[in-house]
Amino acid sequence: MTVKQLSLPELVDACRDLGVPGVGLWREPVQSYGVEAAAKLVRDAGLAVTTLCRGGFLTAIDPAERAAALADNRRAVDEAATLGTDTLVLVSGGLPAGSRDLRGARERIADALAELGPYAEEHGVRLAIEPLHPMFASDRCVVSTLAQALDLAERFPARQVGVTVDTYHVWWDDTAPEQIARAGTQDRIHTFQLADWTTPLPEGVLNGRGQIGDGSIDMREWQGYVEAAGYTGPIEVELFNDELWARDGREVLAETARRFTENVRP
Amino acid sequence: MTVKQLSLPELVDACRDLGVPGVGLWREPVQSYGVEAAAKLVRDAGLAVTTLCRGGFLTAIDPAERAAALADNRRAVDEAATLGTDTLVLVSGGLPAGSRDLRGARERIADALAELGPYAEEHGVRLAIEPLHPMFASDRCVVSTLAQALDLAERFPARQVGVTVDTYHVWWDDTAPEQIARAGTQDRIHTFQLADWTTPLPEGVLNGRGQIGDGSIDMREWQGYVEAAGYTGPIEVELFNDELWARDGREVLAETARRFTENVRP
Repeated sequence: MTVKQLSLPELVDACRDLGVPGVGLWREPVQSYGVEAAAKLVRDAGLAVTTLCRGGFLTAIDPAERAAALADNRRAVDEAATLGTDTLVLVSGGLPAGSRDLRGARERIADALAELGPYAEEHGVRLAIEPLHPMFASDRCVVSTLAQALDLAERFPARQVGVTVDTYHVWWDDTAPEQIARAGTQDRIHTFQLADWTTPLPEGVLNGRGQIGDGSIDMREWQGYVEAAGYTGPIEVELFNDELWARDGREVLAETARRFTENVRP
Repeated sequence: MTVKQLSLPELVDACRDLGVPGVGLWREPVQSYGVEAAAKLVRDAGLAVTTLCRGGFLTAIDPAERAAALADNRRAVDEAATLGTDTLVLVSGGLPAGSRDLRGARERIADALAELGPYAEEHGVRLAIEPLHPMFASDRCVVSTLAQALDLAERFPARQVGVTVDTYHVWWDDTAPEQIARAGTQDRIHTFQLADWTTPLPEGVLNGRGQIGDGSIDMREWQGYVEAAGYTGPIEVELFNDELWARDGREVLAETARRFTENVRP
C-alpha cells in the first residue's frame, strides 16, 4: 500500500532490485491481478509475502451484513493461504450507523473471531487484530489500544488470533510497551509495522502517515520493545500518504528502504 | 469558545436570555475586553464563571521559553482569580520541535506543576490537567489519557491539581470510566466538559468537535460516570467547530442549550 501506484509486477521488480526480501500485500490489487497469478509472481521472484491486509469489519449488527462480512473474511483467509503468508491483518470495523455502543461492537468482534479463528487455523493462517489510532474509533476500528486487542485475542489460541503492532497507532500510548511484553509472552505479536506520526493531519486523517524518520516516533525504541518481547518476524512499513502516492513509486520505495536502514537497527 | 463569534457582552446577554447559569471563559477574549471589566460584566449579570481556559503549554526545553510559559501561567491564575472561578484548565503542550521524547515532556509538565500548584492554591485556583485526544499528542498535548493526567496530578494535593474530563477526548477509552472513579475518590474532577465525536475530521483535526447529540458519544453514560464518582459541579459544553462559528452565535447558543437538555439528565 505504501507504493500502491506500482502494479504488482512493478512492485515485485522494484523489491528485487532494492533487495527488499518480503512484501505485505493488500487484497484489492491481488484480486485484480488474480490470487493464483499473484502467488506465482511473488513466489517466482523469491519474495516472501509477510502479511495480507486486510480482513475484519466485523461489527455489523444486521444479520445479512454480518454473514457477508464473515464470508468475506473466510475468502481473505483463503487468499492468504494461497499467497503463502501465515498472517491476515484484521481492521475490526467502526460503529454501525446510529450506534454509540463501543462495548457491544467489541463483543461482536469476539463473536466473529470465534467463527473465523478455527477456519483460519485450518488454513495455516493467523488472524492479527490491529488496534487503530483512537481517531478511527467511530468509523473504522473500535479496537483502539493493544490492551483492547489482547483482551480480545486472549479468548482464543495464539495460533488463531494475535495482534498487529503498528507504531503509528500506538506510539502515544505509555501502556503500549507493557502490552507488547504481554503479547510477546503469549506469542501473539503476529506482525510489526512502521509508519511515522506527522502533523498537520489531512482532512479525514486516513492518508497522512509519515515517511519513516519524518515524524515524532523513535522507530528503534519500538523495535526494541517488540524484540525484547521475543519478536523475530519481518518489520513492515505501511504508509498511507497522498503525497507519497503522487510520486514515482520506485523512487518512493527506494526512499523508504533507505529510511528503514537509517532508522531501524539491523 | 463554542460561540466565539459573540462578544463578551453579547455572550452574557444570550446566557441570561436562555437561562444558562454559568460560562467557561477563554483568556484571549477576556484579555481583549479587560480582565477586571470582564469580571464585572459577568458578576453584574449573575453569571458564574465555571472555568478559565487555558493555561499549560509547559513542555518547552529551552530555559527562556520555559520561564515565559511559567510566567504566563501565573498570569492565567491571576486572571482566573479575578474572574471569580476556582478552576484553570491546562492543555499541557506537545513535543518541542525535533523531540521524540513523550516521557521527558510529561516529566517537564510535572516539574512545572510543582512551581505552579502552590501559586494557584494561594490564589484559590485549582489547576485542571486536560488529557487531549491522542491525535493531539505530538503538537498540542502529550497527556492523552485520564490515567496519564492522574499520574501527574497525584503528585500534588487535589486542591492544587486535578483533571478535566472532556467526553470528546476520552470517549474511545475503555479504561476512562475506572479512571474517572479514581479521580473522584481523590476529589480531582475539577470540571466536566461535553463535545460530541463526529467524522470525517477536518484538516488539522482541531475544529471538528460535534454538536451534542450529532455524534458517537452517549452523554448520559459519561454524565453517569462523573456523577457516580461524586462530581456535582457544572457541566460545560465546549465545541470547536468551524461550521458552528460561521452561524449566528445566539442561534448556536440556543441550539446548544436545547441539545444539552435533550442529551443530559437534569
